[in-house]
Amino acid sequence: MLEEIGQRAKAASRVLACVGTEEKNSALLAIADALDSEAAWIVSENEKDLAAGRENGLSEALLDRLALNKERIAGITDSIRRVASLPDPVGRILSETERPNGLRLTKVSVPIGVIAVIYEARPNVTADAAVLCLKSGNVVILRGGKEAIRSNIAISEVMRRALAGAGLPADCVQLIHDTDRAVTQELMRLKKYVDVLIPRGGAGLIRAVVEQATVPVIETGAGTCHVYVDRAANIEMAAEIIYNAKTSRPSVCNAAECMLVHRAVAAQALPVIAARLAERHVEIRGTDEVRQLLPAAVPATEDDWGKEYNDYIMAARIVADEEEAISYINRYGTGHSECIVTEDTAAAEHFLRAVDAAAVYHNASTRFTDGGEFGMGAEIGISTQKLHVRGPIGLEELTSMKYIVRGNGQVR
Amino acid sequence: MLEEIGQRAKAASRVLACVGTEEKNSALLAIADALDSEAAWIVSENEKDLAAGRENGLSEALLDRLALNKERIAGITDSIRRVASLPDPVGRILSETERPNGLRLTKVSVPIGVIAVIYEARPNVTADAAVLCLKSGNVVILRGGKEAIRSNIAISEVMRRALAGAGLPADCVQLIHDTDRAVTQELMRLKKYVDVLIPRGGAGLIRAVVEQATVPVIETGAGTCHVYVDRAANIEMAAEIIYNAKTSRPSVCNAAECMLVHRAVAAQALPVIAARLAERHVEIRGTDEVRQLLPAAVPATEDDWGKEYNDYIMAARIVADEEEAISYINRYGTGHSECIVTEDTAAAEHFLRAVDAAAVYHNASTRFTDGGEFGMGAEIGISTQKLHVRGPIGLEELTSMKYIVRGNGQVR
Repeated sequence: MLEEIGQRAKAASRVLACVGTEEKNSALLAIADALDSEAAWIVSENEKDLAAGRENGLSEALLDRLALNKERIAGITDSIRRVASLPDPVGRILSETERPNGLRLTKVSVPIGVIAVIYEARPNVTADAAVLCLKSGNVVILRGGKEAIRSNIAISEVMRRALAGAGLPADCVQLIHDTDRAVTQELMRLKKYVDVLIPRGGAGLIRAVVEQATVPVIETGAGTCHVYVDRAANIEMAAEIIYNAKTSRPSVCNAAECMLVHRAVAAQALPVIAARLAERHVEIRGTDEVRQLLPAAVPATEDDWGKEYNDYIMAARIVADEEEAISYINRYGTGHSECIVTEDTAAAEHFLRAVDAAAVYHNASTRFTDGGEFGMGAEIGISTQKLHVRGPIGLEELTSMKYIVRGNGQVR
Repeated sequence: MLEEIGQRAKAASRVLACVGTEEKNSALLAIADALDSEAAWIVSENEKDLAAGRENGLSEALLDRLALNKERIAGITDSIRRVASLPDPVGRILSETERPNGLRLTKVSVPIGVIAVIYEARPNVTADAAVLCLKSGNVVILRGGKEAIRSNIAISEVMRRALAGAGLPADCVQLIHDTDRAVTQELMRLKKYVDVLIPRGGAGLIRAVVEQATVPVIETGAGTCHVYVDRAANIEMAAEIIYNAKTSRPSVCNAAECMLVHRAVAAQALPVIAARLAERHVEIRGTDEVRQLLPAAVPATEDDWGKEYNDYIMAARIVADEEEAISYINRYGTGHSECIVTEDTAAAEHFLRAVDAAAVYHNASTRFTDGGEFGMGAEIGISTQKLHVRGPIGLEELTSMKYIVRGNGQVR
């Protein structure tokens, strides 16, 4: 079955590679219109998923992530229309040179081809991922979670009909209906047809993909982010940044999990920061040295270092100097987003260079690591790997390139 | 053992990430000088490899690839000095923006970190790969073939001493001395320390890496390249391009393996092309239709389509039109280098867009797909994958990037 899906995807990708910007944008707008007008049906299919979920004892948090209503669908279609209005990432001239022998080389952005996206409960990913792939000229094979299967089928069917109506192959978007786990594993190894695999989900999914995939993967990794409060930090600013990085949305990957405070300012800074975090009842887990300054802090164990809490919990430790902070972050961080708070420019520049992460911040919250905040218009996740894309995966990052070489008979 | 090598590599990479251009270039020149002055010792170690190889019955071709002499070492050190003179690929500003909230975003090129290179018989790769990695700020773990182990140890020891003498960690270059196969497999899964794996070798090695690696891979793939002779081709030019693409160096990946000729010009073109190829005794393997025009051609079998001969053999078939040529290439090609010969600009532009390959040529030989010919100064191989790098892998392609975000207290 996957063999056939792969063949159809590859065939559709040959067509899509030659489709122009206007045609792609019309198809995107047609998809948005179709999802709007079919919203009632999609919601009714979603209700069946929700009923099954309740029967299977899904948590309220998971049921909330699964739920669709007219407003959420309107949110999806708004964002599709915004994507349609963004510049086409395909056909950008990345470099142009003429060689001494007269060959003219143009390096140009092209679609990647066929992208498989494996994701978990949220049915909105079905539309979001498909639309970003389409805009970048890629065909998508979607593999969503079992819990959302009826919603995902409804959304993908509406998109496929809209594509056909707009004159593009319906197979530009294919959803795998069979929710068996073995199919996911087969998809990760469908190298003959799939050019890139993007897993979107928890650490378990990412690990399984890394272990088993033969298809190249763009990892959207976990985030254990740190804020280092330097000896030359503005303490009020440090407290605001830590408060924001920890509490504005603790469940996301760019939230901070640990603060490192320079020993010279710890006695002054920790109580100020702790008082601010107490407003949201954040539990601080600290070393003995931290607990001498913050008696209310819980003792940290070895397990707390490098941990992604996704909760109102924050680890804290005191460091002797900036070097210790950098070494600690490079050891325990996940290479996502890391911050130094300091008024010392030289210390800041050293930190920005020496810390090995997708985004390094001086005097700003780690929460800004996001395609929208970075001005990319849209993103499909945050990459913590070093190949191809690091940081938010926007439309440009969903393209590959090719060299076009124009000659008049040159031989070597 | 690999655990320790990995730890030392990671530690060295933290140092190398903060080293400036001048220091890196001095170290490269020190390496070149040291290899020159230790050439006699390296050659004597190489002779031991050659003697063992003869005993084990290595072919003359393999022995030739294995052999080092003063001239070959001078070739290596010349190329090291050329790499030292190239621009530093690290620290390039890839984009700069200021967000409405005042955050200043700089996307800058950074070293990848730790690169593992797995390669086969040629000992010059030991120096070439190490030098390109160093120049791009990366630490390298080398894993060469058993046949060249003494030569590789000698070269790597000379490089390590030169690094230490230049004030850089010797562990910027580590060679794995244990030639057991299991070690290679362990290296492919050393994800904790290795950021990227580059296999350089035959199809078997590449396949093993793709199957087993958990570390992200840059594939340096095989090349089955085609030349399509359009109905509007200049026949003389087509014959010259095919002659060059096939015979100038048949063993390399950018050599052509198959010609596709438009039916309307086949009767005129095929004899001209065949006569040119006959000068180098190229065996043509053709379809029945080809053989009616070229009685000397050998019948092609199904196995000939998509085959990389690496020899003076060329497949030939006739196509009804450009679309058939494009479909055939997209099905049987390896996405390396593909060429159309035509005087029809519209046909050329359609081919350049629709063919899915790292390099697509109009009226020039596929043999130009090469870092040097493309003006990159140096390369570590040709990538046929679509992520990160497609085409020659030069110094810039051996870098990753990071976002540096400078603020003054911004929170979200």
